[in-house]
Amino acid sequence: MTILVVGSVAFDALETPSGRRDRCLGGAATHFALAASYFTDVRVIAVVGEDFGPEEERVFTLRNIDTRGIEHVPGKSFFWSGSYMKNLNEAQTLRTDLNVFQTFSPKIPPEYQDSEFLFLANIDPVLQEEVRREMPNVKLVCGDTMNYWIKDHAENLARVLKDLDVLLINDTEVKMLAKDPNLVQAARKVLDMGPRALVVKHGEYGATAFFCDRSFADGASVIVPFRAPALPLAEVVDPTGAGDSFAGGFFGYIASQPALTPAVFRRAMFYGSVMGSFAVERFGTERLQQLAPGEIEERFALFRQLSHLE
Amino acid sequence: MTILVVGSVAFDALETPSGRRDRCLGGAATHFALAASYFTDVRVIAVVGEDFGPEEERVFTLRNIDTRGIEHVPGKSFFWSGSYMKNLNEAQTLRTDLNVFQTFSPKIPPEYQDSEFLFLANIDPVLQEEVRREMPNVKLVCGDTMNYWIKDHAENLARVLKDLDVLLINDTEVKMLAKDPNLVQAARKVLDMGPRALVVKHGEYGATAFFCDRSFADGASVIVPFRAPALPLAEVVDPTGAGDSFAGGFFGYIASQPALTPAVFRRAMFYGSVMGSFAVERFGTERLQQLAPGEIEERFALFRQLSHLE
Repeated sequence: MTILVVGSVAFDALETPSGRRDRCLGGAATHFALAASYFTDVRVIAVVGEDFGPEEERVFTLRNIDTRGIEHVPGKSFFWSGSYMKNLNEAQTLRTDLNVFQTFSPKIPPEYQDSEFLFLANIDPVLQEEVRREMPNVKLVCGDTMNYWIKDHAENLARVLKDLDVLLINDTEVKMLAKDPNLVQAARKVLDMGPRALVVKHGEYGATAFFCDRSFADGASVIVPFRAPALPLAEVVDPTGAGDSFAGGFFGYIASQPALTPAVFRRAMFYGSVMGSFAVERFGTERLQQLAPGEIEERFALFRQLSHLE
Repeated sequence: MTILVVGSVAFDALETPSGRRDRCLGGAATHFALAASYFTDVRVIAVVGEDFGPEEERVFTLRNIDTRGIEHVPGKSFFWSGSYMKNLNEAQTLRTDLNVFQTFSPKIPPEYQDSEFLFLANIDPVLQEEVRREMPNVKLVCGDTMNYWIKDHAENLARVLKDLDVLLINDTEVKMLAKDPNLVQAARKVLDMGPRALVVKHGEYGATAFFCDRSFADGASVIVPFRAPALPLAEVVDPTGAGDSFAGGFFGYIASQPALTPAVFRRAMFYGSVMGSFAVERFGTERLQQLAPGEIEERFALFRQLSHLE
């Protein structure tokens, strides 16, 4: 099965307690696509500037990611500079240059129309809605957003949420979106806004999935939430893209399976955590560019050991 | 098997978003003893004042907790007043009156000498060390502490840690104790200080156990840490005593088993989380005073569902 992802492809400048990088390939769609590419076919819709050359292109194509939807326009690519010196759990934004991303208007190539799965990475909800509308026949839509859209673009976001199968956001975002400080109450409120399932990412503490009655196509009903652990790591080199890599592992695994059952959802949560744990071990996308065969299954087994009674 | 616990028996005044109580039976030893009493025999060493009457005594005796080690002296019992109005994850101390606790000098009754397990609740490490020395033949010693002792009584605490089997503290405390912001690195450093295993409590995110090579009597070696989830709750009525209740479930279960194996340790982490999840559902010790038969196993099953792939 094939996932279509729409989102940012960017360059990042990063500083963390482990070091600094002036220019890393980054962006939500990049991290997502790389992580998902270990599970299924991935197609990307994004916009880049003239600074995005063959070297960057090759990061995608080496993982067999379809880049025909990456539009090249004059100017510079989206640039973000962040620091984790004060807090590894939360980036301090030093600079954001939208550049060519400012006028991004996603165009879906005709050859992408038959994609079965759609991931709406964190971009303007107006664009998310537009893409969603142009892909009416996808089997499953999964989306992300962030505090900025929740705070100042609530109405636009509400329209996206109405038509989402799975929303993946973090702790702070779900509480902000629901205007409720309790995670369970907030999750219920967010599920009432539309998504069939909600995955809340807790950073170093893992992630929790909440379900509503309509979560599974086969009618299986799940009331109990599900928690996937995160791997305790002796060094987090660079947290950038951990959430997008989680989403890539999560949705990539789902797209690789014949149907979305409760058991598949649970395993998808683990694969999300697995890909997130790889992502933070190196700067930018370094680690996810080339995982060795077997590394994913090995780490999956580690996550099982980490969390299972027997 | 029998657990001897030494710690505080107190009265608490509490305010939380769910309400307030002017006078609740509390104290680390109380929460611990009640939680552990569902698994094994428990004996308490503590000191109380004249305000601790038959009604309070009955809370213990109804759960078959041995109170012969609770010393009654003139004056008032330890009193603590705390507020969770700003943050449910961290109490704001409004008032602490040590009262009779100020001159607490634990006395171990002769009939307690044959206790096989020892829990050193959060008290002055000098007292913890004293009790430990007087109980040289216990099979297993588990202990707690807090930021105050870590910060200002480091040398005394170091002597306690040297002779501890399991240390149970929270996230902030382990990082403070190790002077390291990374959980894994901090855990390693703390294990180097003496404990064979370290259980780090993460509040609403569960708990992680780290092991050193000497963790298990049967020589079983565990390198991978173990994470137990916490139950996402729609209402946390009162977080007071959640950590002590976790410790009670954890150590109570261990004391009920023939040997401390890796599998027993894992299940103990779950029982700890189970008892912690009950504790916060009502004010003070209300919920743990009388759990119905089957409730613990039912919730244990829920924790399994919450965290296990199949």
